[in-house]
Amino acid sequence: MILPKSPRLTPAQLAEVTAIVEPFGCSVQPIVGAIRTIYAIVGDERDELMINRIEGLDYIERFDRIQSPHKLMDARSDLASHRITFGGVTLGESLLVIAGQCTIDPKNPNFLYETAHAVKEAGANALRGGVWKPRTNPYSFQGDSKSLDILMEAHRRTGLPVDAEVMDETQLHLALDAGVHMLQIGARNALNYSLLRAIGRAVADRKTVVLLKRSLHMGPISEFISAAEYIVSFGNPNVLLCPRGTAPTLDGYRNHPDESITPLLKEKTWAPVVVDPSHSVGKAAYVPACALAAVAYGADGLCIEAHVQPSQGIGDDPKQALTPEVLATTITQARQLWALRRPSKVT
Amino acid sequence: MILPKSPRLTPAQLAEVTAIVEPFGCSVQPIVGAIRTIYAIVGDERDELMINRIEGLDYIERFDRIQSPHKLMDARSDLASHRITFGGVTLGESLLVIAGQCTIDPKNPNFLYETAHAVKEAGANALRGGVWKPRTNPYSFQGDSKSLDILMEAHRRTGLPVDAEVMDETQLHLALDAGVHMLQIGARNALNYSLLRAIGRAVADRKTVVLLKRSLHMGPISEFISAAEYIVSFGNPNVLLCPRGTAPTLDGYRNHPDESITPLLKEKTWAPVVVDPSHSVGKAAYVPACALAAVAYGADGLCIEAHVQPSQGIGDDPKQALTPEVLATTITQARQLWALRRPSKVT
Amino acid sequence: MILPKSPRLTPAQLAEVTAIVEPFGCSVQPIVGAIRTIYAIVGDERDELMINRIEGLDYIERFDRIQSPHKLMDARSDLASHRITFGGVTLGESLLVIAGQCTIDPKNPNFLYETAHAVKEAGANALRGGVWKPRTNPYSFQGDSKSLDILMEAHRRTGLPVDAEVMDETQLHLALDAGVHMLQIGARNALNYSLLRAIGRAVADRKTVVLLKRSLHMGPISEFISAAEYIVSFGNPNVLLCPRGTAPTLDGYRNHPDESITPLLKEKTWAPVVVDPSHSVGKAAYVPACALAAVAYGADGLCIEAHVQPSQGIGDDPKQALTPEVLATTITQARQLWALRRPSKVT
Amino acid sequence: MILPKSPRLTPAQLAEVTAIVEPFGCSVQPIVGAIRTIYAIVGDERDELMINRIEGLDYIERFDRIQSPHKLMDARSDLASHRITFGGVTLGESLLVIAGQCTIDPKNPNFLYETAHAVKEAGANALRGGVWKPRTNPYSFQGDSKSLDILMEAHRRTGLPVDAEVMDETQLHLALDAGVHMLQIGARNALNYSLLRAIGRAVADRKTVVLLKRSLHMGPISEFISAAEYIVSFGNPNVLLCPRGTAPTLDGYRNHPDESITPLLKEKTWAPVVVDPSHSVGKAAYVPACALAAVAYGADGLCIEAHVQPSQGIGDDPKQALTPEVLATTITQARQLWALRRPSKVT
Repeated sequence: MILPKSPRLTPAQLAEVTAIVEPFGCSVQPIVGAIRTIYAIVGDERDELMINRIEGLDYIERFDRIQSPHKLMDARSDLASHRITFGGVTLGESLLVIAGQCTIDPKNPNFLYETAHAVKEAGANALRGGVWKPRTNPYSFQGDSKSLDILMEAHRRTGLPVDAEVMDETQLHLALDAGVHMLQIGARNALNYSLLRAIGRAVADRKTVVLLKRSLHMGPISEFISAAEYIVSFGNPNVLLCPRGTAPTLDGYRNHPDESITPLLKEKTWAPVVVDPSHSVGKAAYVPACALAAVAYGADGLCIEAHVQPSQGIGDDPKQALTPEVLATTITQARQLWALRRPSKVT
Repeated sequence: MILPKSPRLTPAQLAEVTAIVEPFGCSVQPIVGAIRTIYAIVGDERDELMINRIEGLDYIERFDRIQSPHKLMDARSDLASHRITFGGVTLGESLLVIAGQCTIDPKNPNFLYETAHAVKEAGANALRGGVWKPRTNPYSFQGDSKSLDILMEAHRRTGLPVDAEVMDETQLHLALDAGVHMLQIGARNALNYSLLRAIGRAVADRKTVVLLKRSLHMGPISEFISAAEYIVSFGNPNVLLCPRGTAPTLDGYRNHPDESITPLLKEKTWAPVVVDPSHSVGKAAYVPACALAAVAYGADGLCIEAHVQPSQGIGDDPKQALTPEVLATTITQARQLWALRRPSKVT
Repeated sequence: MILPKSPRLTPAQLAEVTAIVEPFGCSVQPIVGAIRTIYAIVGDERDELMINRIEGLDYIERFDRIQSPHKLMDARSDLASHRITFGGVTLGESLLVIAGQCTIDPKNPNFLYETAHAVKEAGANALRGGVWKPRTNPYSFQGDSKSLDILMEAHRRTGLPVDAEVMDETQLHLALDAGVHMLQIGARNALNYSLLRAIGRAVADRKTVVLLKRSLHMGPISEFISAAEYIVSFGNPNVLLCPRGTAPTLDGYRNHPDESITPLLKEKTWAPVVVDPSHSVGKAAYVPACALAAVAYGADGLCIEAHVQPSQGIGDDPKQALTPEVLATTITQARQLWALRRPSKVT
Repeated sequence: MILPKSPRLTPAQLAEVTAIVEPFGCSVQPIVGAIRTIYAIVGDERDELMINRIEGLDYIERFDRIQSPHKLMDARSDLASHRITFGGVTLGESLLVIAGQCTIDPKNPNFLYETAHAVKEAGANALRGGVWKPRTNPYSFQGDSKSLDILMEAHRRTGLPVDAEVMDETQLHLALDAGVHMLQIGARNALNYSLLRAIGRAVADRKTVVLLKRSLHMGPISEFISAAEYIVSFGNPNVLLCPRGTAPTLDGYRNHPDESITPLLKEKTWAPVVVDPSHSVGKAAYVPACALAAVAYGADGLCIEAHVQPSQGIGDDPKQALTPEVLATTITQARQLWALRRPSKVT
């Protein structure tokens, strides 16, 4: 849909627009209004280059997209009936909870083993453990490949499937070779299209689940979904969308809580939404409230940081990790709220 | 606390700072660090003019406030034990629900009467009804003083106390004379200090409750609390803080939902927090989720728009108002969640 | 323009939409596309109630406005050829500079007299002086009506027309009676529609110019222009739009500089844009850069705080006010840049 | 600097804090104020883990950093006297202009050759040309390695050094092997620490200049500088910081213009600032204004998209690219403004 700046296009302008859209298999249809004429682009109007060329015309006010740009991720695509199961939970049927440490301490593997048992006891379905960590400060601890063995050992001891963030192709292949069950793409790499493609290619023939965090900025929802489309386009549709707070911090939390985006995502895509309240608010005391708010907004799962002794943790754990006791209460309340919302779900 | 741009102040700079703070009854105390010396302002450091003068010095990097600027609203002030009761609910002891129409239609008073009965039936404790309305467009319906009679009649018919927004002194006195029980200050007037003072003065000797909406911008929390301090400074401490979504809209709602600010407010002030989910999300379908999220974050009350026939409403009602059925379910779930959160309240 | 959630409306839905728009004198025209049908609202589609009723339908995705909501302020209205002259400057023909104190100190009137002479010398066309001041803290100095006499005396001594902010009807009439030449509406009252109407009514038969600051939040541009429409609708078209930085502060300034909004305003309205760099950046050292950036973006004028002895000023002056020397350089450079941009103006 | 929630720490709390900081070589020094005691951390307080552990204590309100986290990038580091020269321009001594196409069209190499001659003629010092492009839509053209040859041929024909964005290690080595003079890191990879390290390592022993774009979100300034610290820590200090607009778009441009961050960057770091007005505003008509605003704020350089026939370009060029004529005027005006600001530079 094109809106010109003037009440209508001149014949020469209309000819110019037509010449732009025809090579893309589209045509222009004027819609004569009482005051202003606007112009529908009939055909597949999703080509970015065509849109850019029209927006580049100085007599055009704006181009309003009518079609969804997502072939596979769209709420009405053939994949809409696809169901993802992880940690024994079918997303959408009950609440998935992933819990564990922000960062594994390679010098103290027992912390992760104990945390793994504790989060299982508290009701979590899967274990997260940071092997490599994106750090603002180049001189901070950046993680250690040895922690991958610790993570897999925690899996063997508890039976919980494990989730690890990967930041480049080397880490990706180390993680897959070790047998990690869920690959996490962090907020800083959420639009790293080279990595998204590498992951899509690598998991194409596997059942590995990919947890895609939202980028740090509040981009349009379609940009978030397009990042998932990159992965799914290679063939594996097991992708979960994870809002985790955005920057800048607008009110006083570590990030700006964004669980409220959940219903808006669910209108556009069939992909399940798993919210990370720990990074959203960034402080253990606020995490339970944020986790419940996510469930209130319709989240299908939660990804929560927990540690048997938060003050002895590394990375973000001393600030953010819940103790097993608080985690257990949070999971219980979250599941109660999930059940409460079920029959009368409005959104 | 002062941080200079250089590792330490020169003696001349220190003398200049001292000369600024002494007339305000303060002194300067250097704190010698290994790398940098910083300077504490000892005394009451809250005078804005003193702070502005120090920040105006080109060798000062920043002034960090240590003290709360709120004498009465601070969480540790003498008012911290004050309890507000409205509509039969003592705030903090159970969840207050205010519900009703965005805008009263003076040509169809029965809609409000029916809505009043319906929200009472659904479990609401008080009735809201917009008599005068701030409208972006100067040519839109701006409300009508006649609706004040309709609002009071709805009170008489149901026994529910009533809440009305006032936008200037004329409306303020009309509303008080009519016997309105709660005065609402809208987001657009949240920093209209002349109006805040006029209201503070007018309710000083009454028990009227004031519902202060948050301004449209995400200003610092202390600014929101300072607006309440304006009112309370005249003597009536019955003020409720109402987050209602901020602008710009960042994700696709009418406003940007801000119920997550609740725990941050509660750390700074004793005042109860009553969230308005209707204006936050701006569309009926999203309101129940937002209402529950507010309770998840610890809100003491909710202010929700409802109408017996939303599509026949005026103002925002066709878009935002819940039907009585959805309102009833929302109130029930909100009270269940409120109860659930009670014993284990973390935040 | 209506977009349904489904590929097309059912006959029953189309009938419902038609029944909503007909009472507003509009009709619905389907535009059949290859994949999706959309619906034009033919007629005057600007009534907010009609839009709200359509957006309230659960099968409607969105309503895209085609028409400008501004009858008088629109760039194509009859007022587009109106020229405003103030302080000897016809806006659009050369750069208007208003300069002076944030807050007049009633105990030290000589500061304003000296500042008035100094800003005139530096090249300013008008004098600003805060008589009453909106203050976050209720216990800070709020201004004093006596300062009105000081301001008018400064006018008499220098011949410069004067600008003062008014925050309520009492102040409005005091200012007009005293003979103030420009009324300023501050950011906190930018959407105080009662005040906007009162000012519009009061200046309807005068030549008084109104400087309308932008609200603290980044609302849509049309909201800013609508606020001006309130004033102009009473008959006096002498309104200037003043971006002054928004909140929250996103990068480290006092507010978030928003001079870049200028070209966007100029596409929608004929009203001149006068930028306030002082409140945008909030620190004297950054003001000249922001002032020049405003001119780069096409501003028609600047409103700058200056003081003969900033450190002795009150209100924001110790932080923000330029010395006469820096003001003079800034005005000179701003006018050079204005001239430079003139012949090749792209935006 | 630690602020407790209570007026002072208990002896047990003080002991706990001390036990946390001592392993990091720090000690705690109380600063007794009239109303509240705060606590200085004496020693190197920059370790993130130490900060996280203190912030994790529930009796701590906040930790205020006093020291810059940047060893090499800090405005007061030994590198502060380092000068970067590129395209014959020493940054800081005159304005660097990089201009060229967003995306090279591998099917039409002549466009780039002609554009290269045209931007040189217009006064640019270097040529940009997108070989590979990050695209929101996975089905859009993603660039082509063949374009690298075209870019190098354009260099040979004009003598202009060339700038290309790389998004992964494969592209990085292709670009370096081909002899590209400036590597660009795009906004989407601005916090891709694996890529930052790979680039830092690869250019450690070369003179290659790295243009680091700001991330899409408005993170704290120190985060932007830390990303540069990653690169410089390997030994090559030739890094330029490039604000290019942030997301979300807040006012109606493609991104939110952020040239105003320039003076704030220059207070914290010695690195030159090169602003990209093309992506900031996203439409050719607004680019000249934004370019001049950047110079007003003190930018050391500009990176502008230009094309001999914008409407025939691919990628963003049809929307954003300037024609050679407009580019020439913009460069001339920018250099005039740069000269104007020089002697009296306030910021």
